Amino acid sequence: MMKAYALLGGPKDQWPSDLKKQLHAAKNTGDLIIGVDRGAILLQEMGIDVDLAVGDFDSLSAKELSELEAKARDIRYSNPIKDDTDSELMLKVAFSDYQVSELIICGATGGRIDHFLVNIFTFLNPEFLSILERVRIIDRQNKIIYLNPGKHIVEKVSEYRYFAVAALSSVKGLSIKDARYDLKDFDSEYIKVFSSNEFKEDRDNFSIEFNDGIVAIIFSKDVDRYQNIY
Amino acid sequence: MMKAYALLGGPKDQWPSDLKKQLHAAKNTGDLIIGVDRGAILLQEMGIDVDLAVGDFDSLSAKELSELEAKARDIRYSNPIKDDTDSELMLKVAFSDYQVSELIICGATGGRIDHFLVNIFTFLNPEFLSILERVRIIDRQNKIIYLNPGKHIVEKVSEYRYFAVAALSSVKGLSIKDARYDLKDFDSEYIKVFSSNEFKEDRDNFSIEFNDGIVAIIFSKDVDRYQNIY
Repeated sequence: MMKAYALLGGPKDQWPSDLKKQLHAAKNTGDLIIGVDRGAILLQEMGIDVDLAVGDFDSLSAKELSELEAKARDIRYSNPIKDDTDSELMLKVAFSDYQVSELIICGATGGRIDHFLVNIFTFLNPEFLSILERVRIIDRQNKIIYLNPGKHIVEKVSEYRYFAVAALSSVKGLSIKDARYDLKDFDSEYIKVFSSNEFKEDRDNFSIEFNDGIVAIIFSKDVDRYQNIY
Repeated sequence: MMKAYALLGGPKDQWPSDLKKQLHAAKNTGDLIIGVDRGAILLQEMGIDVDLAVGDFDSLSAKELSELEAKARDIRYSNPIKDDTDSELMLKVAFSDYQVSELIICGATGGRIDHFLVNIFTFLNPEFLSILERVRIIDRQNKIIYLNPGKHIVEKVSEYRYFAVAALSSVKGLSIKDARYDLKDFDSEYIKVFSSNEFKEDRDNFSIEFNDGIVAIIFSKDVDRYQNIY
């Protein structure tokens, strides 16, 4: 089973700070490298050959597209009329055709909010229920994982101080145990985000349980806000 | 009826580029200026006196808090145990106590994704249904407005090329008419975002109608992606 990285077209200032290094290391160990739309060009600019490129590529110049077509091992063109979004097509190809075991998505955040929401809510589409627990979305200060109903133990990720529990759909019987702020049998008809929770000092995990719906765990850290110059 | 601006604690690099100018102009015309948590300090740093400060202020130093308490006309402290989030308390105070007619929220995007999701999904709370159409969230390249069920005409905002229609909850009978991509009687049980729609060349508006749920219109524009240096 193959691990995969996908780079979407989101702004570079939201990328994990060591992304280029991570991607070169992944390439060297034989992980699948996926570029979605302009993400494919950004990978090439970093000197990383794209294994799979997905998109309608309408934001690319003719020169960029022909270079990509010459270099990428596999290209899939999404339909501009768009039954599938680029992200949806990428997920289908990665998990069906390439049978990837784990997919790390970068370049999914920042910039246009409509793109961002599409990227994080794609997993509510029922056809992705079977793969959503194998996906991680990572940016400069956040990591998102997705959970199906059931009982889960969530392990601490050392670089992130906080976590949020986000019911992304209606949810039933949501309980959080052994965290700084616990929750018991919460039901909601609409999206609800419990933010700024933390792991207990003496524990490296917490447990979460729910009967219905989809929940995301959003790990996050503060970054130096003064690095952003107004 | 008073117009209001609220600045939240989100990173400056996502602020509208002319925010400081907008806020000084608003202050001069007597609009209410609201700072939420660290947003109150950021306003003071721009030389703008805060009319209303809301938050638990736990990220502020003792010196910052005492300066804020000396200068802000009205301070409301949210409960750290948090029945209300800072955003929720701010909405209640602005619309109930100050009876504002329109609220423009900045600093709501970027940075921690849990904060961002809380900021944009707060309006699903049934107690805010009556005010959600008077709220706008604005950042560097997006403007979000919210709609209750019914028929609406959405006017073009010249600086934004694209718009998305986002069903933020389950939705029934969603139709879009007279846009580049129309939609007819769409139902969904979960969040669905129709992104990258555009106004027709010969029209300055489109119409939208739905029977149940909450819909956001997300206006957006591309910005020069190369201004972000990796």
